[in-house]
Amino acid sequence: MKKCIIASTSTIHGSGYLEYILNDLANLFSNTNEVLFIPYAKPNGISHDEYTQIAQQAFQKINIALKGIHSFADPIKAIKDAKGIFTGGGNTFLLVSQLYKNDLLTVLKEVIEAGTPYLGTSAGSNICGLDMKTTNDMPIIYPPGFKTIGILPFNINPHYLDPDPTSTHKGETRETRIKEFHTLNSQPVIGLREGSWLELSNNDILLKGALSARVFEQHKKPYEVPSGSSFANLN
Amino acid sequence: MKKCIIASTSTIHGSGYLEYILNDLANLFSNTNEVLFIPYAKPNGISHDEYTQIAQQAFQKINIALKGIHSFADPIKAIKDAKGIFTGGGNTFLLVSQLYKNDLLTVLKEVIEAGTPYLGTSAGSNICGLDMKTTNDMPIIYPPGFKTIGILPFNINPHYLDPDPTSTHKGETRETRIKEFHTLNSQPVIGLREGSWLELSNNDILLKGALSARVFEQHKKPYEVPSGSSFANLN
Repeated sequence: MKKCIIASTSTIHGSGYLEYILNDLANLFSNTNEVLFIPYAKPNGISHDEYTQIAQQAFQKINIALKGIHSFADPIKAIKDAKGIFTGGGNTFLLVSQLYKNDLLTVLKEVIEAGTPYLGTSAGSNICGLDMKTTNDMPIIYPPGFKTIGILPFNINPHYLDPDPTSTHKGETRETRIKEFHTLNSQPVIGLREGSWLELSNNDILLKGALSARVFEQHKKPYEVPSGSSFANLN
Repeated sequence: MKKCIIASTSTIHGSGYLEYILNDLANLFSNTNEVLFIPYAKPNGISHDEYTQIAQQAFQKINIALKGIHSFADPIKAIKDAKGIFTGGGNTFLLVSQLYKNDLLTVLKEVIEAGTPYLGTSAGSNICGLDMKTTNDMPIIYPPGFKTIGILPFNINPHYLDPDPTSTHKGETRETRIKEFHTLNSQPVIGLREGSWLELSNNDILLKGALSARVFEQHKKPYEVPSGSSFANLN
């Protein structure tokens, strides 16, 4: 029985790291007071230790201790033993490269499916999809593959941004990029705006947070779904 | 003797496809009235034929016929025989995948170095760098590698966008992404704003267009260089 929060972002405008979602995290991790942190995505290139400290500061507000996976001699065992897991955001290419390198993708999927509570934000959410082909990140490292853990039967696009009708910029909009994705790939993509998250529990997948999400299915016009909707049948 | 225009974008705001740069293209391709078009990047998922037609409409204004590489039985020979080459923008992952698949990276580098005039826009410019690790595009397909032709001794970031100080968005800025790139990679990156291009001729690399460019070197603070500057010694 999966129990996950898969969030668009760790931080929303005008609020501290994870602050907007702390109550839900206290509930997600109510079974434990120690969570394993996966800092591999290294936002802004900070060190694993620095990143773990930032995350720890947020988690101590709900009386949970974080331990970085980089401090374990055997990261596979660390995942198997964890009572809760949090993968932070940053660069998805780097995160996925490290997960492949340490052979952690399969075990991560296994423990989440067996019920270990899991929190992902941004890059840590991307890896819950079928593959990382809808990340926004720059390909700063060549990973051994783009396949990810597939806890969700679709992909997400975190930090989803609507096209700006006043923009003079000619780079592709997010919608155009996802349209290009669907010329080669068939799975749906949920454009998850900042402040939105997916809650997996009781075999359901619910959209949470104040905003609607934008859903992209191959050969269909993109459409909006309101907060509270279920994505259990989207695949 | 290389002769290239490596442009940030095909199109600037308020102007038609390639319109802002047509005079320079007439000069670049003054040796020929037929140019080979590489449409593999397929912007917005359009077909190779559709894309070739769009590019053809711009080139006919300077009396040049375009022929899409997809219409040749032997694309390697098409590149060897071409009197001029244009690689259009779209998705860099798709473009690079197709170049690998058709074994075109080496021959493309060879003919450009031997003097075949080359135009790249956006994705078609990305491939002129040492690798494609500073593209903005979504990784919609897994290419056999990220290494590209390396006509330039550095990378470029096309459609470069300055951070917006009024933004409430928490996704990474372009500058942050390039900073993350430099935690793992040492080559310089030129942030090439829309309307800017690099002109390669007489063994020099000059910044052209009205705007300055932003240069990112590893372990240095990013800095601006004015139009007209040479990048011949940047590596």
